[in-house]
Amino acid sequence: MMRSGIQSSILVGVLGALFACSSKSAPTGGGGTSSSLTDLMKARNLSEADVNAALKTYTPSGRMDEYLAFSSGGHSGQVIVIGLPSMRILKYIAVFTPEPWQGFGFDDASKAVLAGGKRFGHDLTWADTHHPALSETAGDYDGQYLFIGDKANARIAVIDLKDFETKQIVTSELIGGDHGAAFVTPNTDYIVETTQYPVPLGGGYADPAKEFKAKYRGAAVFWKFDRAAGRIDPAASFAVEFPPYTQDLADAGKLVSDGYAFFNSINTELAWGGNQEGNPPMESSYSKNDMDYLHVVDWKKAEALVKAGKTETINGMKVIRLEVAAAEGVLTFVPEPKSPHGVDVTPDGQDIVVGGKLDTHGTVFSFAKIKAQIDAKKFESKDPYGVPVLSFKDSIRGQVELGLGPLHTVFDGQGNAYTSLFLETVVAKWSLKDLKVTDKLPTHYNIGHLTAAEGDTVSPDGKYLIAMNKWALDRFHKVGPLLPQNFQLVDISAPKMQLLYDMPLPLGEPHYVQIIKADKLKPIDVYTPGEDPMTGKKAEFAVEAGKERVERKADGVHVYMTAIRSHFTPDIIRVKQGETVKLHVDNLEQAYDATHGFAINSYNVNISIEPGEHNDVTFVADKAGVFPMYCTEFCSALHLEMAGYLLVEPK
Amino acid sequence: MMRSGIQSSILVGVLGALFACSSKSAPTGGGGTSSSLTDLMKARNLSEADVNAALKTYTPSGRMDEYLAFSSGGHSGQVIVIGLPSMRILKYIAVFTPEPWQGFGFDDASKAVLAGGKRFGHDLTWADTHHPALSETAGDYDGQYLFIGDKANARIAVIDLKDFETKQIVTSELIGGDHGAAFVTPNTDYIVETTQYPVPLGGGYADPAKEFKAKYRGAAVFWKFDRAAGRIDPAASFAVEFPPYTQDLADAGKLVSDGYAFFNSINTELAWGGNQEGNPPMESSYSKNDMDYLHVVDWKKAEALVKAGKTETINGMKVIRLEVAAAEGVLTFVPEPKSPHGVDVTPDGQDIVVGGKLDTHGTVFSFAKIKAQIDAKKFESKDPYGVPVLSFKDSIRGQVELGLGPLHTVFDGQGNAYTSLFLETVVAKWSLKDLKVTDKLPTHYNIGHLTAAEGDTVSPDGKYLIAMNKWALDRFHKVGPLLPQNFQLVDISAPKMQLLYDMPLPLGEPHYVQIIKADKLKPIDVYTPGEDPMTGKKAEFAVEAGKERVERKADGVHVYMTAIRSHFTPDIIRVKQGETVKLHVDNLEQAYDATHGFAINSYNVNISIEPGEHNDVTFVADKAGVFPMYCTEFCSALHLEMAGYLLVEPK
Repeated sequence: MMRSGIQSSILVGVLGALFACSSKSAPTGGGGTSSSLTDLMKARNLSEADVNAALKTYTPSGRMDEYLAFSSGGHSGQVIVIGLPSMRILKYIAVFTPEPWQGFGFDDASKAVLAGGKRFGHDLTWADTHHPALSETAGDYDGQYLFIGDKANARIAVIDLKDFETKQIVTSELIGGDHGAAFVTPNTDYIVETTQYPVPLGGGYADPAKEFKAKYRGAAVFWKFDRAAGRIDPAASFAVEFPPYTQDLADAGKLVSDGYAFFNSINTELAWGGNQEGNPPMESSYSKNDMDYLHVVDWKKAEALVKAGKTETINGMKVIRLEVAAAEGVLTFVPEPKSPHGVDVTPDGQDIVVGGKLDTHGTVFSFAKIKAQIDAKKFESKDPYGVPVLSFKDSIRGQVELGLGPLHTVFDGQGNAYTSLFLETVVAKWSLKDLKVTDKLPTHYNIGHLTAAEGDTVSPDGKYLIAMNKWALDRFHKVGPLLPQNFQLVDISAPKMQLLYDMPLPLGEPHYVQIIKADKLKPIDVYTPGEDPMTGKKAEFAVEAGKERVERKADGVHVYMTAIRSHFTPDIIRVKQGETVKLHVDNLEQAYDATHGFAINSYNVNISIEPGEHNDVTFVADKAGVFPMYCTEFCSALHLEMAGYLLVEPK
Repeated sequence: MMRSGIQSSILVGVLGALFACSSKSAPTGGGGTSSSLTDLMKARNLSEADVNAALKTYTPSGRMDEYLAFSSGGHSGQVIVIGLPSMRILKYIAVFTPEPWQGFGFDDASKAVLAGGKRFGHDLTWADTHHPALSETAGDYDGQYLFIGDKANARIAVIDLKDFETKQIVTSELIGGDHGAAFVTPNTDYIVETTQYPVPLGGGYADPAKEFKAKYRGAAVFWKFDRAAGRIDPAASFAVEFPPYTQDLADAGKLVSDGYAFFNSINTELAWGGNQEGNPPMESSYSKNDMDYLHVVDWKKAEALVKAGKTETINGMKVIRLEVAAAEGVLTFVPEPKSPHGVDVTPDGQDIVVGGKLDTHGTVFSFAKIKAQIDAKKFESKDPYGVPVLSFKDSIRGQVELGLGPLHTVFDGQGNAYTSLFLETVVAKWSLKDLKVTDKLPTHYNIGHLTAAEGDTVSPDGKYLIAMNKWALDRFHKVGPLLPQNFQLVDISAPKMQLLYDMPLPLGEPHYVQIIKADKLKPIDVYTPGEDPMTGKKAEFAVEAGKERVERKADGVHVYMTAIRSHFTPDIIRVKQGETVKLHVDNLEQAYDATHGFAINSYNVNISIEPGEHNDVTFVADKAGVFPMYCTEFCSALHLEMAGYLLVEPK
């Protein structure tokens, strides 16, 4: 839709023409004067560049956005859906944190999804969502599923983009937390999750002061995705054990490098903390070594080893042990400069770009060079755990001088790379061919990740980039000591980058984002009548119009209820104190947007029932009394009348 | 900042001049051509009106918004802070629903706030937030506090705008739910909360089929606000009993009508449901009567009765019983046409506008006429509960013919009123003086509430209006069967209303909004070192730099910890399985935006520690093992290194 190359510098010319002209010309229509545009610019203190940016982002009433961005919600535990270029938030998707508007964590089915994420018997009501990953087919986003990792608790969630709802949460107690998660292999065979902070695998106890090197480990879990079922299959999943280096970000190979995955690491120093036990603070002990290790994993070989039974099962997860991975060529190391952070495979799959956050360079590794050494078993050394180490200089294509604090790199598909420089607080644009910086754009402030349209695929779109800035400071009106983050939308369609828009993030500290062309998404409008959204099938307890009823069974009082504008049937529920109530509620509507809510006073019952949807809610009516129940979603002019009572007769 | 009257019709002239001119003039600078603006408009399909709206809303990087809107988050249970005119969401404030980014419901202090909202022993982890009310001084917003009601569970929350955090939740088991809540009296002496669905007062059981008329009741609770303490004082609060009509919206008198409050009602028919017990559905039985009752409460008289002890205490709340309220002149009724919804007092306090949602009129009641009849005890009749009823025709100044489905009315301070028409899906602008409609603006779709800048005060600003539309349908890219709502920003500075912006609401179904001039808000940047945000004072367990330590006491292991870029001290916590851990964490930073998070793997521990803030977290270390802990808020280039371990040694 938008043409490239319309830069503010050009608009200066346009406005120059307007101003020059307006002093001579009479108005030509509408009763206005040609100074009105200047009046408006003056009144709102807008520059020509502002006008240009406004017209590139403003999206009139009823007009659709061209791209959708799926953003992690950071430690809100949710996913944020943002339209581009308007930068309007279209939805928060409840993922790991119970959220009442969506009824997530309130009905029986979504409670079961959340229960899938329990660890060591503990309910977890939050997550630190980090990297969202859209499902891919042949290395391109296909718009079907979204996965996201929880750094805090080593969990992966599966969101179905059919209805934008979370369908599954998986976790393995093999590991303690993750960071390089979620990312997908090019056909979404696997969703990969890599540890950050090492622990004794499987949940045991070991004192790091004595046994860090011997007992602590990292791992990459390869979660098998069953696309037909739309679910991860834990039984078909496996892990590869790593040394207790702090593994960091990760990316899958693609095209020529398909079958491989790349993980970087910090802390080859094996620091574990203990700043009140005689050790230096971790941030200094982590940074002693000049080189850490890029982990290269041949996951197709790993898959074959799993099939061959060369695994050990630890706390329910099949693990390729470190010595096997090293001996069988599943795991190889390449030295990488100084506390690297991001690792990003280029769209053609040929290079791997690593940002060494305490280095001023981006290092461009060549997959072909790495592969040639591995195939020739040409190893320079082994690490203390026996993992073969390649030659750094034989593995790189070159380095690009970027500036202070390079973190992550994304691509535009026209041969350009864009790297975030945290300390310098800029986006650096550079040529993949020449390894030279061609432009820098200041960000506000302290950019972490950045993302580009379809940027993680084999065919990036270019066009838009989002700088995900960690500090907002003076960008927005003050809202107390906890500030929003600032996403800055950047036009990358011309040689020079242009800042278009500052967007505050009102809930959560987003970590990473993927941007997909909006027309790839085909969500449903309504559910099939009686559908259980979790199974996609007719629910066991689906209720049809005219068949509303109450049945007392051994497991409780089953209330079969329907909702349609503007009443619930039945609108009175009579139970006896202490009875278990099993509500089955169907929204009979098939009109788009005709959602009903259902809430019961003082009982923490609250569900969202979209058109056609079936919901089940179980609770114990332990307190006697009269409890109003009503529709919480404004549905008609007589919405307030869509109400009734739960009557709990005293024992 | 923005001038009034810059309408798109004028811009047509400007662009006409530009186009006319551009065909003759050469470009004057920047290398552009004067067709570039038209190219950009064409590329993004923007009309002249779109350009005008874009320039009225686009807010360049680093520019502050002029107004802040505080919106209910509907059944998300939160409050949404929106900047105007950019319509960017600046913050979701956690109120009734636990929210991990803010650590709300995760640290001991906020858990205690949430526990204040328990009802009948049940934890409630959501709310149906309805009407936010900014604190007022002399009828004008003072920017100090925000209150909001939970319709589902009859609760009121107090948010301190010093730090945008929820400090208190109160509830009374006297009533079952509310709707006319929260609204404040002109000096914030009271926050008023009125029932929607009647119940037996205080929580008893009564079968509505037999005892609805006799035992069910409504009430208005007048929660006393102690401004010095910044808290509601339940002991100084009281309620006025109402008949079991379904009370609906409410507003406080101001200026001439100060001391009075107005509540409307539906269901004088006394329907209670029972659509499977031989009764018609509620939406038809609610609508039989031509008139319901506007409830007029003399709350200063009520306050005097409470002081005189003329109350009965029911479930902890002092109640002026219905017969006392009727006999003493505290409660008077005025007939109001057909299922009214909104009741809104004009800025001068002289009139009360009621939207009869099944009527096509807005009815303008005259406070002077009502007061004269009450003073003269000139009653036309009594309702079945003995409440005096005034004459309808002697109480009104007139009626305005509005259209289909009038709901709510707001004001611009220049003599205009704006009423939302749900069924007609428009905003109707009308003259308070002439009671004539002067303009109508279509909304997309089905407007519920609407709000205007400082619209509920004695001195509305005009300028901006937000239409809060309940259905979005085709306005935004599809995001599954659960759609956002659509806020439409309207410029009301000129005689004709102009639609400026469509804003999707990504989380929650907002019910009502108040808009305040941004410069009235003076939030703090950082906390005083060691401050407990709940008390505003130095915390009992505040930790200073160098005094980090672990102390084993009778009530558990006290860990005194500090956080500063880029480490926690101590970074290793050693406890024995089964021990209670009491963490005391201080963020030593005093730099703006230098927030740290603190999370422990698998233990559901997650807090947000803003600069200077002290936090306490208590948990039982019931599972042995090694659990990584780390900072969840990206704080520096060495943020990943800000980590450590909780070591739980097995028993």
